[in-house]
Amino acid sequence: MFIQQLIERLGSEKVSQSETELYRHSHDESSHQAVEPDVVCFPEGRKDVEIIMAVAREFKVPVTPFGAGSGLEGQVIPIKKGISINFERMNNVVKFSPEDLVITVQPGITRLQLNKIVNRHGLMFPIDPGADATIGGMVATNASGTTAVRYGSTRDQLLDLEVVLADGTVIHTGTNAKKSSSGYHLTGLFAGSEGTLGIITEITLRLHGIPEHTVAARCTFDTPKACAEAAQTILLSGIPVMRMELVDEDSISQVNQYGGYGFPVCHSLFFEFAGTMRAVEEESKLAEQLMRDLGCENWEVASGSKERMEIWKARHEMAYAYQHVKGMSTTGADVCVPISRLAELVEFARKLIDESGLTGGVLGHVGDGNFHTIIIYDPNVAGEKEKAEYTNEALALRAIEVGGTCTGEHGVGLGKMKFQETEHGAAVAIMKQMKRMLDPDCLLNPGKIFLD
Amino acid sequence: MFIQQLIERLGSEKVSQSETELYRHSHDESSHQAVEPDVVCFPEGRKDVEIIMAVAREFKVPVTPFGAGSGLEGQVIPIKKGISINFERMNNVVKFSPEDLVITVQPGITRLQLNKIVNRHGLMFPIDPGADATIGGMVATNASGTTAVRYGSTRDQLLDLEVVLADGTVIHTGTNAKKSSSGYHLTGLFAGSEGTLGIITEITLRLHGIPEHTVAARCTFDTPKACAEAAQTILLSGIPVMRMELVDEDSISQVNQYGGYGFPVCHSLFFEFAGTMRAVEEESKLAEQLMRDLGCENWEVASGSKERMEIWKARHEMAYAYQHVKGMSTTGADVCVPISRLAELVEFARKLIDESGLTGGVLGHVGDGNFHTIIIYDPNVAGEKEKAEYTNEALALRAIEVGGTCTGEHGVGLGKMKFQETEHGAAVAIMKQMKRMLDPDCLLNPGKIFLD
Repeated sequence: MFIQQLIERLGSEKVSQSETELYRHSHDESSHQAVEPDVVCFPEGRKDVEIIMAVAREFKVPVTPFGAGSGLEGQVIPIKKGISINFERMNNVVKFSPEDLVITVQPGITRLQLNKIVNRHGLMFPIDPGADATIGGMVATNASGTTAVRYGSTRDQLLDLEVVLADGTVIHTGTNAKKSSSGYHLTGLFAGSEGTLGIITEITLRLHGIPEHTVAARCTFDTPKACAEAAQTILLSGIPVMRMELVDEDSISQVNQYGGYGFPVCHSLFFEFAGTMRAVEEESKLAEQLMRDLGCENWEVASGSKERMEIWKARHEMAYAYQHVKGMSTTGADVCVPISRLAELVEFARKLIDESGLTGGVLGHVGDGNFHTIIIYDPNVAGEKEKAEYTNEALALRAIEVGGTCTGEHGVGLGKMKFQETEHGAAVAIMKQMKRMLDPDCLLNPGKIFLD
Repeated sequence: MFIQQLIERLGSEKVSQSETELYRHSHDESSHQAVEPDVVCFPEGRKDVEIIMAVAREFKVPVTPFGAGSGLEGQVIPIKKGISINFERMNNVVKFSPEDLVITVQPGITRLQLNKIVNRHGLMFPIDPGADATIGGMVATNASGTTAVRYGSTRDQLLDLEVVLADGTVIHTGTNAKKSSSGYHLTGLFAGSEGTLGIITEITLRLHGIPEHTVAARCTFDTPKACAEAAQTILLSGIPVMRMELVDEDSISQVNQYGGYGFPVCHSLFFEFAGTMRAVEEESKLAEQLMRDLGCENWEVASGSKERMEIWKARHEMAYAYQHVKGMSTTGADVCVPISRLAELVEFARKLIDESGLTGGVLGHVGDGNFHTIIIYDPNVAGEKEKAEYTNEALALRAIEVGGTCTGEHGVGLGKMKFQETEHGAAVAIMKQMKRMLDPDCLLNPGKIFLD
């Protein structure tokens, strides 16, 4: 019935019930249980999104936005079925003002598509979660990744969002000015709301100049804890690193096998420095000195762009390297803690994995205090999944206990719902009130972020 | 009746009805009509704030938070009378973690008090609105000032807020982690809400390292428009200026008279560069070259800390310089526009003032596209106030028209309420719903931000 309405109002070319599409929209890159939507819509503009919301309201059918499907907490899984909205046809640039370092895009554009357009003007959208996520998906989960240590998260890049609300109202949350003290800050609220408060149809972003010169480096230490302590030293020194990543021995070993790399199988820190030639030289030298003072076992600089690319390609492939092990499933944590607690938490995480008897690694964006575990388990061996999930849970709870968060960048989705009360306490009731206020019939990505 | 309750529950030493206190809490630094509260309370901790809110609920009496009274849009004026909450006794550091570059403070601490504490550890809270505002007031208005071009606004410095809500619930809006993707971003929402959504009782802030070396410089151009164009050139060059301020001829003249300075009476750009010695030298030289290419008439560097301080002292005194003119009132605008529209808007503002026949200046944080007008008028001469207000209004509307905002940093308060619908359109209804949800009896700073 509602599907018929969608076809009539949108046109059949924008509505699909093919098995392939239903399957594609049933899952993301996590191991959360897949659920197929009843139908997938492919809007080509805001008007189409408004039509979809009108049908959803009329028939009380849930809608779940879908970007690239590269999420890790099941945000795009339509657990109450209904309509999956795929934004791949809404991937245009609406307005580009290089002279303002600002661009307005539709949500379906991916970060690589976007960078291809703006790089030509000497500009970049620096946020790099690894996957070629859509900008809409990155806004929805407040994604970040390797460069957040320098540029912040996706939320920090936003000037304005156009949002279609559940009741059909279209709002703009900001302006094109670099800052504002006018009205309530709705931009920050919709960012990270994972499609539960409204459907984002346009995004206005800050851009940044491409640094003149870039150098990568890596070094190794005896323990993951020593790596984390070294990262803290770099931060306190004030060196404005572009990237600073912890990759433990196990993760190096996995990615060497997966991608045929020859990185020394040791607990490692990967660095990137970027700026003027002179600044980069100074920073890299100072970092080397600091690392050697802390007993780093080697310091390798990759200044050629090929070697540099290889380091970051390998870093981005680490999750895939674990997922690649045949017949096995993966799961992992995404905690972020105050820098002073980082070394302790990294050690705690490594111990948890070792004690579980499972294979897994510790790696992450240690410049932010944000790190991940990735654990492989055999879904056919009784108890392995539970063991893996126990380590995730123990780590998330410990992170919250020391003043941190259960998710630094992946978002809540399905996997972090159970920690919301522990982390946010009485604030959860306020968040739920906001949800009910903006979406009284619970049509927008129901069953995510909050348990009820 | 409610005053008796306050005295009984808080103790008489925390409650004042003295004429001096009622007068002090009736106004800020703006020319908005003063209104005295019925009573002023001086809470000494969160529990006291909870008691005040309980009494306010019981007797349906409005509460209006008061920081340093240095605001410019009347946010602290208790236009519906009731209770003014003065935070000067809540000015303690709750927790300081230099190794995390994080500090938790009570809202009544001022930015100079805070910097005195953290500077000893090589750290700083960089946001500098000129006045020695309280941190609570700066959060409430999302204040910024001269360094926002490098560090962003107050909102960008926040990790967590403790807030007492109208119904007495106490919430924390964030964590101590540098980033998070968990739950809705309430921190950003309460920041800039001007006391209309809850009473902030604790603030957790990011700190930054004090740059090793700092240099100030100034140069002059023929027109304010040429200054704005020069500022745009600096931004596009990627030089990470610490401060970049436009001060027009009229403002230079006022501040020379007020403070006995000898700045050349020309349209000027004031700069500050900060970082390592080498980086600062490079940046300053490059900026000089760019400015000379654009026809700048002189370039004066002040590398001594005394000369440097003088430049910024003068910059901060400009508003006072105008206010100082005997028997006269001042008013002004606070627009922020996309950088590409800055020169045009600065020219538009200068013309508006000239056409009004009044004395006034154009000055501001042009690195953000944020600038102010300050206009002097004689309140006893019929029509002068109206003329001054017409220029403010025309400038705000033009700023909104070109994609900017009616307030870059002063906030809405009483003065910018009339522009909310024009700037935010349908989003205002959502903001009002949030207000009603969190404050159904309209006890929290009523009559601010929204007209109803």
